[in-house]
Amino acid sequence: MAEKKTILIIGGFGFIGSNILDRFLASGNYRVIVFEFMNVVPKRKSHAEEAKVYYGDFNNAKDLEQVFAENSIDIVMHLISTTVPASSNANIVFDIQTNLVDTVRLLELMKQFKVGKLAYLSSGGTVYGEPQTLPIKEGDPTNPICSYGITKLAIEKYLHLFQYLHGIQYLILRPSNPYGPYHTSTKQGLINVMLRKIIAGEPITIWGDGHIVRDYMYVSDLAEAAYRMIDGERWGNIVNVGFGKGYSIRDLLAIMKRAFPAMEVVYQPSRSFDIENLVLDTDRMNSLCDVPVTGLEEGIRKTLDWMVAEAEGKA
Amino acid sequence: MAEKKTILIIGGFGFIGSNILDRFLASGNYRVIVFEFMNVVPKRKSHAEEAKVYYGDFNNAKDLEQVFAENSIDIVMHLISTTVPASSNANIVFDIQTNLVDTVRLLELMKQFKVGKLAYLSSGGTVYGEPQTLPIKEGDPTNPICSYGITKLAIEKYLHLFQYLHGIQYLILRPSNPYGPYHTSTKQGLINVMLRKIIAGEPITIWGDGHIVRDYMYVSDLAEAAYRMIDGERWGNIVNVGFGKGYSIRDLLAIMKRAFPAMEVVYQPSRSFDIENLVLDTDRMNSLCDVPVTGLEEGIRKTLDWMVAEAEGKA
Repeated sequence: MAEKKTILIIGGFGFIGSNILDRFLASGNYRVIVFEFMNVVPKRKSHAEEAKVYYGDFNNAKDLEQVFAENSIDIVMHLISTTVPASSNANIVFDIQTNLVDTVRLLELMKQFKVGKLAYLSSGGTVYGEPQTLPIKEGDPTNPICSYGITKLAIEKYLHLFQYLHGIQYLILRPSNPYGPYHTSTKQGLINVMLRKIIAGEPITIWGDGHIVRDYMYVSDLAEAAYRMIDGERWGNIVNVGFGKGYSIRDLLAIMKRAFPAMEVVYQPSRSFDIENLVLDTDRMNSLCDVPVTGLEEGIRKTLDWMVAEAEGKA
Repeated sequence: MAEKKTILIIGGFGFIGSNILDRFLASGNYRVIVFEFMNVVPKRKSHAEEAKVYYGDFNNAKDLEQVFAENSIDIVMHLISTTVPASSNANIVFDIQTNLVDTVRLLELMKQFKVGKLAYLSSGGTVYGEPQTLPIKEGDPTNPICSYGITKLAIEKYLHLFQYLHGIQYLILRPSNPYGPYHTSTKQGLINVMLRKIIAGEPITIWGDGHIVRDYMYVSDLAEAAYRMIDGERWGNIVNVGFGKGYSIRDLLAIMKRAFPAMEVVYQPSRSFDIENLVLDTDRMNSLCDVPVTGLEEGIRKTLDWMVAEAEGKA
């Protein structure tokens, strides 16, 4: 049997991180280290037992340096973001300092400690800006309309530079809109936020008239795709990770209405930073790994099952 | 007669800046303000008399704020860079902090003082990285192999964002390799550096075997193109500004050899950050403004004339 590889998952207790962590732990083929901000608790208790956990500040290079000094790391997966798209324009300097500059510091640590592989979670929803054609291919123009997307894009360019200068291999994932287990945010993640409101008997808030189209992906599929591309050594690629098909908010409401006929919807004015239609072309993803993609209605049902189990303390 | 507009040229005493300053002063249609670092002297004495000059630190937002507070500015032209391509990879964090972050601060000042137009000097030589096809069009892939090119590219994305969010109009110039009057660097600008060495009777140093191809543009033509596009209100464009034709270093040597048969050449190993072939497609520039482009041999002769006049104290 081959020796286990060691992967450091930076941001491994977040929504996407917890799903990816699950997948790497389940494989049995990896020693898993998680680096997280002090205040982030594991979504599942066993995560903190099965992974080696370092708490620290991503924006303090000394905290990260300790992890590299104490462990022989083969692969880094970087999932931390200090901002969200909607708020990133309010303090652009903060966005640049805490995401772009500190990711460059991470790259410099990897160079110093001779760690040669980095998988990075970019953003299929923000790096492109207003798409010119749908579905969006990885080589399409990139004109973000939020700072969050610009710093992600600039980080992608630095990954390319460090590959060119120092041979650090990268895998850049540009996910669409994930939903599903381990989601806790009340601000981001439309499907999860809607389902939680429905279960609580509260009305759902929709910005605009519901015609906006997005590419919703069941988060376990995203984690599966990330695992297969990292484990399959698909380095050197920038890859859309999505469902590959768009659904409008009205489509979501119709699906949910079938399960919850009594649900209420409140409409608010549309937001300036919302792009109308966003669907990712997933041909490259499908050529790089074989991922079973969960249908929207099935994914929503699974998410509901998880929410119920979680509420009963069984998740 | 129309009222004069006010243009603030940030970095107006640099090599390219002095040429652009010349052109705006000569037009008679603009009140010209120059903002420069403390230690930068005007290349021509009259520049400091004909333009209103502010000395300060571009990286201290308070120094720039004073300029906006004391003047009603119509157009900003931003030409300052704190780094050069060859050295930018040695301290990437510095490159991001002093170029990207401080240009975002400039944009925030423009928003605060309601200044609606910004012309920015990006870089046709570094934002594209290794070209996939020649000549390079503005929509081609951008994968810089130096941090200098990444920060320029990220600044372009923030210009687009500030146009989208706050209506600040931009004109992005991506110049090729300029040469000609007002050049003083001993590190950058191959043609000028070569000519100065020849005049001084020193050998010319060439990295590699001289097959590297670049797009050399006489700097007065660059200034003319910048003037015409700004004066012609060509906002909202990203434009290559170049000669549109490539010459190898060997071509340059052949031209110079005709004028100076006794010149000496020393060959050094090639440098990793030098791209092989770089020629800009100038169709967009030509569609936006009518620019007479000086041929290479004529441009070199004019540059020599200027060098001789400068040495005699007449430039």
